[in-house]
Amino acid sequence: MAAASLCTRGQPVDAARRAGPAAAFWSAALGVRAEPYAPKLQFTSLHGALGGLVLAVQAVDDTPRLHRDIEMDDVAAEAARLVGPRATPVTQWQECRVLRAPGRHLVCVLPVESAPEVFDAEARTWP
Amino acid sequence: MAAASLCTRGQPVDAARRAGPAAAFWSAALGVRAEPYAPKLQFTSLHGALGGLVLAVQAVDDTPRLHRDIEMDDVAAEAARLVGPRATPVTQWQECRVLRAPGRHLVCVLPVESAPEVFDAEARTWP
Repeated sequence: MAAASLCTRGQPVDAARRAGPAAAFWSAALGVRAEPYAPKLQFTSLHGALGGLVLAVQAVDDTPRLHRDIEMDDVAAEAARLVGPRATPVTQWQECRVLRAPGRHLVCVLPVESAPEVFDAEARTWP
Repeated sequence: MAAASLCTRGQPVDAARRAGPAAAFWSAALGVRAEPYAPKLQFTSLHGALGGLVLAVQAVDDTPRLHRDIEMDDVAAEAARLVGPRATPVTQWQECRVLRAPGRHLVCVLPVESAPEVFDAEARTWP
């Protein structure tokens, strides 16, 4: 199962201040509500914006970008699988592996955060 | 209805050469097939990668980025609506209006490209 994240830029003291207007904009643009994601307050969820995917604005002290998250029940195996078709390991953040794809986009492989029944129903499986 | 596009970077002579490996990577990463989009060969479609959304790799001579496309039956009205919650007009490309959202992400408003019955079924409507 894949989850998409929007990231927004900020200096260390005002990442959250910058993320607020970005979340408000995407809420209005896509016609969905924006709500803080309580377990991790750097994220603001945009509920129902992309069908079965998770779309969120993340307050980060970095260059603004969109990146794609992929949930996996075996993070290390999936990160290794993606290095096969030429992704490059960048860093590890908490339990997530950050890779750079050909074309220079970032992709994060993270542990399952969806409800187990959602993950089981929607995940693609590899041999 | 919203459509998502992946863009990849290239110099003028090799944008297409760079886009090929990016499309191959995302095809393998997401478990979907990649096919050239015949009406506009700068795009490679990744069929079924994001549920009801369109995901494509676009060969462009620019910084690599992800951007979001929003299909609209009235492009000018929607562009004006998004400037309300503080998007900034950037440029116009063919019939598309390119805006920069708070948080610095690009969003393109484009005419309807989906089949009419798909657009009618999935579009959100504004008063």
